[in-house]
Amino acid sequence: MYEIRTDLALEAREKYEQDNVEIKGVRLEKEKMCEDIRITTMVIETENGARSMGRPKGNYITIEAASMDDEDERYHRMISEQLARIIKRLAPKGKQLSALVVGLGNREVTSDSLGPKVADRLFITRHMMREFGDDVFGKKQKRVSAIVPGVMAQTGMESSEIIRGILRETQPDFVIAVDALAARSTKRLNRTIQITDTGIHPGSGVGNHRHPLTEDALGIPVLAIGIPTVVDAATIVNDTMNNLLEALAEHAPYGRMRNSYRSLDEVEQYELVRELLAPHLNTLYVTAKDIDASVNRLSGTISDAINLALQE
Amino acid sequence: MYEIRTDLALEAREKYEQDNVEIKGVRLEKEKMCEDIRITTMVIETENGARSMGRPKGNYITIEAASMDDEDERYHRMISEQLARIIKRLAPKGKQLSALVVGLGNREVTSDSLGPKVADRLFITRHMMREFGDDVFGKKQKRVSAIVPGVMAQTGMESSEIIRGILRETQPDFVIAVDALAARSTKRLNRTIQITDTGIHPGSGVGNHRHPLTEDALGIPVLAIGIPTVVDAATIVNDTMNNLLEALAEHAPYGRMRNSYRSLDEVEQYELVRELLAPHLNTLYVTAKDIDASVNRLSGTISDAINLALQE
Amino acid sequence: MYEIRTDLALEAREKYEQDNVEIKGVRLEKEKMCEDIRITTMVIETENGARSMGRPKGNYITIEAASMDDEDERYHRMISEQLARIIKRLAPKGKQLSALVVGLGNREVTSDSLGPKVADRLFITRHMMREFGDDVFGKKQKRVSAIVPGVMAQTGMESSEIIRGILRETQPDFVIAVDALAARSTKRLNRTIQITDTGIHPGSGVGNHRHPLTEDALGIPVLAIGIPTVVDAATIVNDTMNNLLEALAEHAPYGRMRNSYRSLDEVEQYELVRELLAPHLNTLYVTAKDIDASVNRLSGTISDAINLALQE
Amino acid sequence: MYEIRTDLALEAREKYEQDNVEIKGVRLEKEKMCEDIRITTMVIETENGARSMGRPKGNYITIEAASMDDEDERYHRMISEQLARIIKRLAPKGKQLSALVVGLGNREVTSDSLGPKVADRLFITRHMMREFGDDVFGKKQKRVSAIVPGVMAQTGMESSEIIRGILRETQPDFVIAVDALAARSTKRLNRTIQITDTGIHPGSGVGNHRHPLTEDALGIPVLAIGIPTVVDAATIVNDTMNNLLEALAEHAPYGRMRNSYRSLDEVEQYELVRELLAPHLNTLYVTAKDIDASVNRLSGTISDAINLALQE
Repeated sequence: MYEIRTDLALEAREKYEQDNVEIKGVRLEKEKMCEDIRITTMVIETENGARSMGRPKGNYITIEAASMDDEDERYHRMISEQLARIIKRLAPKGKQLSALVVGLGNREVTSDSLGPKVADRLFITRHMMREFGDDVFGKKQKRVSAIVPGVMAQTGMESSEIIRGILRETQPDFVIAVDALAARSTKRLNRTIQITDTGIHPGSGVGNHRHPLTEDALGIPVLAIGIPTVVDAATIVNDTMNNLLEALAEHAPYGRMRNSYRSLDEVEQYELVRELLAPHLNTLYVTAKDIDASVNRLSGTISDAINLALQE
Repeated sequence: MYEIRTDLALEAREKYEQDNVEIKGVRLEKEKMCEDIRITTMVIETENGARSMGRPKGNYITIEAASMDDEDERYHRMISEQLARIIKRLAPKGKQLSALVVGLGNREVTSDSLGPKVADRLFITRHMMREFGDDVFGKKQKRVSAIVPGVMAQTGMESSEIIRGILRETQPDFVIAVDALAARSTKRLNRTIQITDTGIHPGSGVGNHRHPLTEDALGIPVLAIGIPTVVDAATIVNDTMNNLLEALAEHAPYGRMRNSYRSLDEVEQYELVRELLAPHLNTLYVTAKDIDASVNRLSGTISDAINLALQE
Repeated sequence: MYEIRTDLALEAREKYEQDNVEIKGVRLEKEKMCEDIRITTMVIETENGARSMGRPKGNYITIEAASMDDEDERYHRMISEQLARIIKRLAPKGKQLSALVVGLGNREVTSDSLGPKVADRLFITRHMMREFGDDVFGKKQKRVSAIVPGVMAQTGMESSEIIRGILRETQPDFVIAVDALAARSTKRLNRTIQITDTGIHPGSGVGNHRHPLTEDALGIPVLAIGIPTVVDAATIVNDTMNNLLEALAEHAPYGRMRNSYRSLDEVEQYELVRELLAPHLNTLYVTAKDIDASVNRLSGTISDAINLALQE
Repeated sequence: MYEIRTDLALEAREKYEQDNVEIKGVRLEKEKMCEDIRITTMVIETENGARSMGRPKGNYITIEAASMDDEDERYHRMISEQLARIIKRLAPKGKQLSALVVGLGNREVTSDSLGPKVADRLFITRHMMREFGDDVFGKKQKRVSAIVPGVMAQTGMESSEIIRGILRETQPDFVIAVDALAARSTKRLNRTIQITDTGIHPGSGVGNHRHPLTEDALGIPVLAIGIPTVVDAATIVNDTMNNLLEALAEHAPYGRMRNSYRSLDEVEQYELVRELLAPHLNTLYVTAKDIDASVNRLSGTISDAINLALQE
């Protein structure tokens, strides 16, 4: 079946929502911080739910903040605090835990550089706490280390190989993986944060990871934090078709056209969409013009949150 | 009337070509360098032609090179040589001329940084020739100076104000303005160079210049060199509609649909397209994933060409 | 006579201070903000004073802050506020004044990139106030524009040519020039800010400006703000000789050596120092290892101050 | 004993050379490529020699090239070819070997960014050869992977921990470690390349590595390639003292001074030098003004050489 690509569980859920279908094994809770910030917790509870959603069992929490792409220090601090709260909730509990933060993605490609930029701005403590004792930063600071593994074209190695090696040598208690995501809807670009305790899955991220970074694969819990920075151009085309249908439904003059599209069966519709994709579109993507500034700002919001979450 | 935005004269011409219309006052010559590189010279000769094309009288030369976005040093050198030849053809003739190269665009936005990056890599000679004599680099070197004026949000000034001031102080004989462009077709991204002796016009470029940089405005000839690095997302939507029509024309099952779209008049079609544009799409653009590397490579190709053209 | 190079008026004054000489025509006031921050106002009041100090009549205000090279947001805000206060004091008074901020130096050389980085972070208002009226940001906001002229090797033009041209076109009321400086003492690196109403003089700055940017040269008042980011290696050698003499004075075993150096006359001492300078030292400079981070931090401190000073 | 710090074995040897001492267990061969390029092979053959030189047994090959800091493509290619030849000589022999290149140092500190920048420009093949077979690039290409481990302040981990982990996972046959070095003599800055088969030792490099990256520590051969980009400021002071002594020896008027310094015993001389070191000098270093451009250029020279050496 033709699958619209999205890294956001929330967007995968939406296709059902439109049709008012309730999905067995998937629980949804909405929380509103203020006019502008909405937090949605989705729990995929059963294997059935996992199949329906096309992703593994676990917690998927989404912060949607319409003004997150603006430059407003107070607003970003507020989001950092919410994100820190969620990280704490999903992270393993216990004393003197140590975390390895993995900044996934390609430092040289602006839209894929979120992970490396977050790693650059973390408060790194492991080396100091090993040298001067666990109390050097006060009682409740966790041991924090970080790595930017780079992408396969730069290193010749899978990120998972590099990370597995480092885990074996340094033995942290859990991993926080940060990555730039692809969304389905352009209105979510740079305005949504997803946090999940299910880790990173093959095919996800702007860089299309090939191997899982999950508790199953690595042996320790993996939190994944991501922000969508791109939309596949193919998705835009598809959205256009949907908008077209919507438009046709509402406006009388297009009635004939809408009916003719509707009269196509699903396979015919899919084939039509595929044909519409110009060959060059596969390597293109849609992003905001000021993506350079956005990624800088958002990497600060996430790194602040991680610093907060691991300090108390 | 609804105008698809493109900075390439070649693309403006294409809408007529499809309908096999010959345009009065516009002359077209095609030249093929090799399998892969095609050079098209368009001369808008009359005011009538200018009106039809929506741009001023003058020469518009386009180098299309399908492999230009690849990393192949020999290939890029070949393009640089062709570009140098064209620059020499369009530039004012004479002894001891001096050129000011203007790197337009925003250094901080990858897709708009072509101009500044070209300026960074030029062979600058004016200061040396003033200090040590016109022969310091051999008989035929032109005086070259360069400026990166920045964008209005950074400077609070129009690029045209900055450039006019510098022209008055330093009195060069002509200007070469380099800028990143917007194209209509995704297949031209990073694969086409346009050179024109008509300068820079309001509304053109990734950054949407507000004021002209033309011989009329500045008092000296202005060559403009550009490469399309983005396609407006709105253009993609429009292309999709066209592809849709094409698809409908060729495949029997969609015949009904095509006919119903065709039965809409031009205004209805336009309104339909506008409605399909999601509100966020206006600030979005489509670009290649490896735009960071492309801009670095292409800025080298152009600066090599300018260096060649001004040295002999 | 052999002159130790420094861009800090305070350091030029110090050579006299050591000898307890009072200098006619030079007034000195010291102010202490707290344990750590010291502000010194030096007024060169007469031509005599100017000759003694080797720089023109005017105000030279120095903020020395021992912790300025550390990462402490509150501390930097405090310095920004002091600096803003001084800028206001030295800037022309009047309603609806407009300022052009000039970021001098070379963006590509870390230790010389202070000026460009300050310009990047300013609150630019001129274009908005021209378009939407002088009240668009409230009553008291000045018109602010900014330019990064680049260095002669990049542009082929003197900074002064570029700036004169822009002044003529855009007619601001005064200039604020920001530049990286050379100091004499390594302990001042990244820890001192100099503000003067005498502008920029030939030979000053990390980049050794060739032409003045002064009220005489440009026709409007010029404030200059600078931070020393380098010490000439030659200065280090000279300091070593001084330390040597000090050491000799205090420790008995070196008495013979000290006496023999002292027995050299001034010219002999100078010749000795020159001989000690290895030929390569001339193009070398001494800087802090973390200069990249320091320049980023300090450019924020200065741009915040300028933003504050021009907003109320 | 007081040791002048240098990462160049050649410079450690020089102190003996000055005194015309032959060192047991150390063999020296000089080779001259042309007027300008000199290659010196030093072999430390015995434990005795290792003690005298303060570094382990093995080969230390130095390319000194006076124009290496200039921008001359042909010259750099010539150096790359020499360096490639030496890498091949020192690297393990055999079919289908795989190499991990480690780019040591701090990407964010210009003078310490040589290693990361070399890693950025390598021809990486491991992932392609694993996926498409060992012949995908022709018969003789080695498997190449690369990692930029970052520095401890960024990662919280020793470079050696990260590398050991990656070695265990990916099993390469040998390591090539690239690092920026500290030299003793300013005339060697950016003009000397050292290649050794003894790896990286604690205390070496601009970043002062804490743990060894040697065959003993990692279990596979380690080639180390480095270029000096800094001189400790303390070294400059010391050089000055030596120049002082030289100057005194040659010029009559300073005879008394020279004799008084010579009359100090070694400990007194050392104490004098220590006293002359200003407290701030410890964190300062001397580097070339155009270090940013130099590191970019030299990273290309080294990566070209590694690419050449591993391709045939």
